[in-house]
Amino acid sequence: MPSAAPAVVALGGGHGLYASLSALRLMSDRLTAVVTVADDGGSSGRLRDELEVLPPGDLRMALAALCDDSDWGRTWSGLLQHRFVSAGSLDNHAMGNLMIVALWELLGDTVEGLDWVGRLLGARGRVLPMASVPLVVEADVQGDGSDGSPTTVVGQSRVAVTDARIEQLRLVPADPPACPEAVAAVRDADWIVLGPGSWYSSVLVHLLVPELARALHETDAKVCVTLNLSAERGETQGLTATDHLAALHKHAPGLRVDAVLADPSAVEDVSELAAAANGMGARLLMRQVRRGDGTAQHDALRLAAAYRDVFEGVYGDV
Amino acid sequence: MPSAAPAVVALGGGHGLYASLSALRLMSDRLTAVVTVADDGGSSGRLRDELEVLPPGDLRMALAALCDDSDWGRTWSGLLQHRFVSAGSLDNHAMGNLMIVALWELLGDTVEGLDWVGRLLGARGRVLPMASVPLVVEADVQGDGSDGSPTTVVGQSRVAVTDARIEQLRLVPADPPACPEAVAAVRDADWIVLGPGSWYSSVLVHLLVPELARALHETDAKVCVTLNLSAERGETQGLTATDHLAALHKHAPGLRVDAVLADPSAVEDVSELAAAANGMGARLLMRQVRRGDGTAQHDALRLAAAYRDVFEGVYGDV
Repeated sequence: MPSAAPAVVALGGGHGLYASLSALRLMSDRLTAVVTVADDGGSSGRLRDELEVLPPGDLRMALAALCDDSDWGRTWSGLLQHRFVSAGSLDNHAMGNLMIVALWELLGDTVEGLDWVGRLLGARGRVLPMASVPLVVEADVQGDGSDGSPTTVVGQSRVAVTDARIEQLRLVPADPPACPEAVAAVRDADWIVLGPGSWYSSVLVHLLVPELARALHETDAKVCVTLNLSAERGETQGLTATDHLAALHKHAPGLRVDAVLADPSAVEDVSELAAAANGMGARLLMRQVRRGDGTAQHDALRLAAAYRDVFEGVYGDV
Repeated sequence: MPSAAPAVVALGGGHGLYASLSALRLMSDRLTAVVTVADDGGSSGRLRDELEVLPPGDLRMALAALCDDSDWGRTWSGLLQHRFVSAGSLDNHAMGNLMIVALWELLGDTVEGLDWVGRLLGARGRVLPMASVPLVVEADVQGDGSDGSPTTVVGQSRVAVTDARIEQLRLVPADPPACPEAVAAVRDADWIVLGPGSWYSSVLVHLLVPELARALHETDAKVCVTLNLSAERGETQGLTATDHLAALHKHAPGLRVDAVLADPSAVEDVSELAAAANGMGARLLMRQVRRGDGTAQHDALRLAAAYRDVFEGVYGDV
């Protein structure tokens, strides 16, 4: 008899989380996405300001990633992702952002609203916010001030594109209420997946929500860190794969990590990365997880195969 | 064996069509709503201007009226009808208007987009626009100019609230393409229901779309005219029930009518109304179809019972 699929919680935001969910949905139907709610740019930022709600954009993308692969699922997911283009005030608003916010207003409950969108899409898994209130991300950066002294960059949209080296990340408020269902999912999981994604503003930010960080440190679940395919322009410009692990360690020194997954093409020094992984208690898996077309994008099937190896403990040689 | 439900086409717009559909959905699952697309006010008017689309509001209300009476149907219909309230640019936009327009942009087809919303709601029947292009309603009115000469009121939102007596209604463009599926539904119907609703701007306006008017004159379907419960403020202020029939006759002198349905409380002179109905070839049915709470609103169950009498030819004494 086949064993049940592992219960997996994926933490992140934006395109990185979309990539991991597109793969994980092929591996498990016991899937929970826990999503950053600190976005302050674009359609999400405008809705957050105008209607005083959680920024819905990262939640929308996660829901779209989990949608059922049928005519029904594809149509509604296409609608969620559709953006208006006009010379007027609707320009660039994503339809799914408006729908999620309207469900929140109608039902008066964040999680219930997201669950209804999930039902509409026939989503394979559940999408939850990392916190119950909108958050502001702040980063202390080096070398931005004219005299080289640290300065503070405020807002996820600004942090994501800063060229300066990030020293320390903070949330405002510093102790936001976590989403209780997200905390419970982390505690009940078999595997936690952190990354890929904008390393500071979409991945590490989860470790700054105290209740969620506590659950991540205390859970019996194993933890897999999935590294990015390339150093993004902006917040992680110039950072190596090993630097990414070091940044994680700096922001969550007590976090046990079981597996680090990386694509050979994105690792400059495999021995150094393996040593850094081992130093956190983790084993390194090198797998081709990028597309074959030369773009720095994850291939859902290859990434799914790599997660299967991670979850089944098939590590191979590194 | 019970005979099949009659194929019914209901023509109108706004709250009047919502009322007739709420009743007809209890009578037939072979139901088509044909809806005015001349609205130029509110959320619909803004979307029409900003995105150059059909005004979606009357279509949205018709879809909401047909939604499945289940937790699923009620939630999505509630979402469609939800309006944003803010100090910003989303204020007063109905969520369903945005959803319908986004589906049109996504699918590139008006009828397909409406059918998808119908599927979402589990709608009992189909909702179609009366024309394939946005329309402007113009009315020549008496007594508005200072010298008593006729003047022209432009736009459905202005026509609907004019205090002046309407002499003649026109569409711009004068010969818009009808929706082919709407024309086919009229030709294939067993019964056509005209009204209730804003008499000029939501009901008579259908007779000004040439292809649709031709189908209404040529169809073998029987025609039922449902009169309003009260003379509305604005366009029909001061008009009696008989005046409403006369206005219909004036705008479509060749239209055969089979039944006229009226509530006793809204008829000043029953003999006069019966004579006017008979003059158009119709029989008059007097039925209590209003709610018992004193409001001038139709009761869906009473109106359904009255339509059953109409369709089955149970006319009773008048």
